[in-house]
Amino acid sequence: MSRSIFYHAGCPVCVSAEHDIINLIGAEHVEIVNIGEDRARISEAEKAGVKSVPALLTPTKNVLHINFGASMADVKG
Amino acid sequence: MSRSIFYHAGCPVCVSAEHDIINLIGAEHVEIVNIGEDRARISEAEKAGVKSVPALLTPTKNVLHINFGASMADVKG
Repeated sequence: MSRSIFYHAGCPVCVSAEHDIINLIGAEHVEIVNIGEDRARISEAEKAGVKSVPALLTPTKNVLHINFGASMADVKG
Repeated sequence: MSRSIFYHAGCPVCVSAEHDIINLIGAEHVEIVNIGEDRARISEAEKAGVKSVPALLTPTKNVLHINFGASMADVKG
């Protein structure tokens, strides 16, 4: 199975969701990307359909927006 | 591992998220509850902290609100 990608921005709600996702699907099945630090990946996330973080991009390329942490505009601003 | 509970209300975004969650964590690890049909479980969901559906209640009792389908008020109304 190909991996999911969990995009976050280091906010508390992101960290909490990250722990939940790792517990649920296993660390080996998900790449964790902090787009607050790794800003080169913001455009990749946006192209994948990420509107807010935390968000999980599934292997089938669906985006699950989890809770509501920060909008992409907030991360970029 | 105890199971997660996925609460939804039968809306298209809920069904899409349900498929993603089952693919990610496995059908045997999650109970699917349609609170649009099984209305007796609405209060259980609210007590668990569910503010909107679809939402995933993890075994550690955290609520992950996924995308934004319908508020609890919409489901009850």
